[in-house]
Amino acid sequence: MSQDPITRLALELGRLPGIGERSAQRLAYYVIKASHGTGRKSLAHDLATALVECVEQARFCGTCQNLTTSALCGVCSDSRRDKTVICVIEGVADLRAIEASGGYRGVYHVLHGSLSPLEGVGPDDLRLRELVARLGDEVKEIILATNADVEGDATALYVARLVRPYGLKVTRLASGIPMGGELEYVDQATLGRALENRRDF
Amino acid sequence: MSQDPITRLALELGRLPGIGERSAQRLAYYVIKASHGTGRKSLAHDLATALVECVEQARFCGTCQNLTTSALCGVCSDSRRDKTVICVIEGVADLRAIEASGGYRGVYHVLHGSLSPLEGVGPDDLRLRELVARLGDEVKEIILATNADVEGDATALYVARLVRPYGLKVTRLASGIPMGGELEYVDQATLGRALENRRDF
Repeated sequence: MSQDPITRLALELGRLPGIGERSAQRLAYYVIKASHGTGRKSLAHDLATALVECVEQARFCGTCQNLTTSALCGVCSDSRRDKTVICVIEGVADLRAIEASGGYRGVYHVLHGSLSPLEGVGPDDLRLRELVARLGDEVKEIILATNADVEGDATALYVARLVRPYGLKVTRLASGIPMGGELEYVDQATLGRALENRRDF
Repeated sequence: MSQDPITRLALELGRLPGIGERSAQRLAYYVIKASHGTGRKSLAHDLATALVECVEQARFCGTCQNLTTSALCGVCSDSRRDKTVICVIEGVADLRAIEASGGYRGVYHVLHGSLSPLEGVGPDDLRLRELVARLGDEVKEIILATNADVEGDATALYVARLVRPYGLKVTRLASGIPMGGELEYVDQATLGRALENRRDF
């Protein structure tokens, strides 16, 4: 490639989500400065190695579609996890967030996206066949933990219909005022949802 | 390295400035998804190649310390640029910003930092020797274009003292209300500076 390598690095960095043209240039300069004269152990070489090793070793868990480097991910291969409850999520980051909350002992299913007709994401683009294939006698409950936005709600509805023939308990994460949230600063949609879903007290 | 390659990629990405732990994880997942099943032409491989090529080919311009892949940078090797005026800047990004403004035909000198005792950056960490080495008969003016903050002002003062024995014209970029700025929303320090530097009209 005949392109200037500094420009090219900035272009490649700019392909990452959330990194604009200026940030990409700033990052490229940082990498060059941080790597200058430090030889093979430089930030640039470490990052390059990590990138290649990661994409060459990373794969999807054969059961839940989580990212892993083994045939089964850490959650699915853990015999203490409750395999009768499957929490359906949009992405791997959601799995980490729920694990960090410490309150869940079941297993997951990662859809790798949400239904979005505007962005051309249909049911065939999500890992739905893999979900249906897991619905044997063992599974008792599906928790729909997609995002609380339009796409997440539509996806939850779709999955609920899809699993209905299996006679499972299907639940959806509660939505409402976040903990510590002050009513005055909560957005209208959240407030509306919180009112609609009000509980006996 | 025995570490999980997904975790390792996130850690390496997290070493970049402005990218926190969560962003690094999000980027790592994005790279894996974007590179999955696309083989050698994947985002990860492109980025890895760009990183290594860039740091192996990038160097500092022998004259102005700008980043380049040749012995001299594009500005210094351009015979139409006015070599009698040197604009002293903190970083390469500042050079691009000034070039983009289109109003400058002189050359540059990149200090690669600013004086900051708190962060342990002293005069020896800046490219000051290289600046002094350029001050021959040809140079008539030094424009101090360091940032309009405490470190930038201190650096400008230091450079001004350093070049004083050479009997050059030394100027500093104007500071004041930005174009289109409304007084009501301008911060106090800028307003104070704008008043102090008021011009006859």
